[in-house]
Amino acid sequence: MKNERTIGVFDSGIGGLSVLKQLIRILPYENYTYLGDTARVPYGNKSDKIVNQYAEECSNFLINKNVKIIIVACNTVSSVALKTVEKLAGQIPVIGMVEPAAAAAIRSAVNGKVGIIGTRATINSNSYQMEISRIAGEKKIEISSKACPLFVPIVEEGWINHDATRKIAEDYLMQFIESGVDTLLLGCTHYPLLQRLFMEMLPGVELIDTGEHAAVATLRKLADKNLLNEERKEFIEKPNIDFYVTDVPESFHENAIRFLGFDVDEPKKIEL
Amino acid sequence: MKNERTIGVFDSGIGGLSVLKQLIRILPYENYTYLGDTARVPYGNKSDKIVNQYAEECSNFLINKNVKIIIVACNTVSSVALKTVEKLAGQIPVIGMVEPAAAAAIRSAVNGKVGIIGTRATINSNSYQMEISRIAGEKKIEISSKACPLFVPIVEEGWINHDATRKIAEDYLMQFIESGVDTLLLGCTHYPLLQRLFMEMLPGVELIDTGEHAAVATLRKLADKNLLNEERKEFIEKPNIDFYVTDVPESFHENAIRFLGFDVDEPKKIEL
Repeated sequence: MKNERTIGVFDSGIGGLSVLKQLIRILPYENYTYLGDTARVPYGNKSDKIVNQYAEECSNFLINKNVKIIIVACNTVSSVALKTVEKLAGQIPVIGMVEPAAAAAIRSAVNGKVGIIGTRATINSNSYQMEISRIAGEKKIEISSKACPLFVPIVEEGWINHDATRKIAEDYLMQFIESGVDTLLLGCTHYPLLQRLFMEMLPGVELIDTGEHAAVATLRKLADKNLLNEERKEFIEKPNIDFYVTDVPESFHENAIRFLGFDVDEPKKIEL
Repeated sequence: MKNERTIGVFDSGIGGLSVLKQLIRILPYENYTYLGDTARVPYGNKSDKIVNQYAEECSNFLINKNVKIIIVACNTVSSVALKTVEKLAGQIPVIGMVEPAAAAAIRSAVNGKVGIIGTRATINSNSYQMEISRIAGEKKIEISSKACPLFVPIVEEGWINHDATRKIAEDYLMQFIESGVDTLLLGCTHYPLLQRLFMEMLPGVELIDTGEHAAVATLRKLADKNLLNEERKEFIEKPNIDFYVTDVPESFHENAIRFLGFDVDEPKKIEL
């Protein structure tokens, strides 16, 4: 097996970098193309119609880059515009955030109680609730959810350990302590950066990282389609990633390094 | 004097509504056209180039609506793209946020120490610092500034009296307590909604609301150009405002009511 075409990943901005990190961890021998639509970020408080339009433009960019698979590394797009991406992609497989994480949450929920947090658009779409019900079938899952729009700007500000972040998290997560969930689905790609705080505030609760499960689903899909790249023998210092963004705020590069934990090339500026 | 053409106001989203509120307070007999570029909000963390492009598109929309004056009700656009707007507007006068507020801050600063808070783009542009130095001339003004990117999402979440907001404000405003400013320029149109908290945290410090001073500058400019509308004799229940937005998230209408303090028509959706 040998397929050097890149894995295409897109997001409204930097959040998808947490998905890219999981992809690299699970698929280290692949090459990547990452697109962040930083000129129009964030998508999470915008309408379904606008999110579908932006998703279409991002997908076309990756399709023109001849990617072998498209990872929709954004829970908002995965929740409201996955069908749009799949339609455009045609034969190119598409992995969204919702299905793999929903399945993981069901497996994890021993007491049958799952909490879901995400952007307003993701939560309002009911995408996770519907997917969990569909996959669970006969198994009874009790779902509670909460839109947490402040976590994204908090993460982008880098205030991971700030008192304010704790106050915000207390407000948003209170209901999950009360309802006694044993699994919390982090339905936004920014949230894994707050994982330590969530673990501390919700001891014993299993946290579902959508990027991790999407990465595993990507591995399975590439294997299934004979699209995996050849394993490299040599030690890999740095993965091969082309970054594209629609705007270049000074913070993108430093955020990329912060999310990924290693140095990366500067992004190329493009127009959609 | 009689000129029924509308006053055109634009912003990246809802922040400019605090400016519109001040305009209505100071110019109650006018008609208004308000454009919020909600499909691409916020502008405050984006590059100068992208902000200039968006400002151009917003200005063209208002010019085509035959407005008699353009109010750039966004500190970010006023800081990095005012010249672009003025060039497009030609004979139509343009009022930005920076000059009127800078002049007001100088007048207010008895001890000569002015603090400035705003978005990252506004603070990085040094627009207020340069304008204050220019206007102050011989008068020595000591300026300290701080980018406060979390205040915008906090206001949009409606967390005006939240513990988290206090923690965030303590972090951002600490330096102004230490430097002993007697005037704080609120260089972002969202910040007037946090005015009460700022007053409590910085007792005795004069807060400069950019919208208020821009509204006064608008009155002077319209009077100067003989463009004021005739005074109405009848009691005005509701100002005449046409709202346009580039995306319609469910929260726009409720935010408009919250910012303005009275009921308004639903916005019309347009494309730029």
